[in-house]
Amino acid sequence: MARALELLGDRWTLLILRDAMFGVTRFEELRERLGVARNILATRLDEMVANGLLERQPYDSARCRYDYVLTDKGRATWPILMAIRQWGDSWISGEGHEPIQFVHRTCRKKTTAQMVCDRCGEPLEPGDLRAVAGPGLTDPTLLRRPPS
Amino acid sequence: MARALELLGDRWTLLILRDAMFGVTRFEELRERLGVARNILATRLDEMVANGLLERQPYDSARCRYDYVLTDKGRATWPILMAIRQWGDSWISGEGHEPIQFVHRTCRKKTTAQMVCDRCGEPLEPGDLRAVAGPGLTDPTLLRRPPS
Repeated sequence: MARALELLGDRWTLLILRDAMFGVTRFEELRERLGVARNILATRLDEMVANGLLERQPYDSARCRYDYVLTDKGRATWPILMAIRQWGDSWISGEGHEPIQFVHRTCRKKTTAQMVCDRCGEPLEPGDLRAVAGPGLTDPTLLRRPPS
Repeated sequence: MARALELLGDRWTLLILRDAMFGVTRFEELRERLGVARNILATRLDEMVANGLLERQPYDSARCRYDYVLTDKGRATWPILMAIRQWGDSWISGEGHEPIQFVHRTCRKKTTAQMVCDRCGEPLEPGDLRAVAGPGLTDPTLLRRPPS
């Protein structure tokens, strides 16, 4: 998780990803929407391209202008954004004050994403999960069980 | 989402929440696990208490020592942490190199959290979701539909 957060653990990066999912691809539109300084936005976009979250697609080669388009790796952050949004709806905005909601195209209802176990399909609660060492655990002190 | 990120959009805050979910409650243990400077950790913990993510429970009143314990609001961030972890497993560590895995106590299998629609139960994909204005939308330009 620490390595994931090196790529994502910045407010601007997550807001740029949010806007990219809304289809915003251009520097000036991002700058206006986010109210972010040009140099900070330029640095973040460079990092996001270097980290494989966005890719540049030239739309005006003569003037070196690019669209910033989500890669598969960038698009795959959507559950993170959804979880942040839903937490904010519950704990900051409060029910009935959600700024944005989502309609599930399949069932046509307003939907809230719910996390379920991919094996048994039951809704997950944090207490249902027991952390265990994975094959890539290099620092065993990372895994510390909550007192039960 | 921007307001949620004002509370969460910092790498240390999310790592402190991760460790708090592992049952780490003390300043010194957090400092050692995260390798973070004392002043940064102290500032982040103060902010997290002010923002209602953690609460202080004295364990040695004479020396003003506290356990930092998750509030309900703090504990409710677990889907965010799970989504970040799973994204890192897929796109940074890679399959077979996960540092930490989770066993679902109910079905006893290693589980990956999957996002499903809370109305119809079907797995969600980002393309299945259509963003619409919610009751709390104050800036209508926020909602920008991707070109279809």
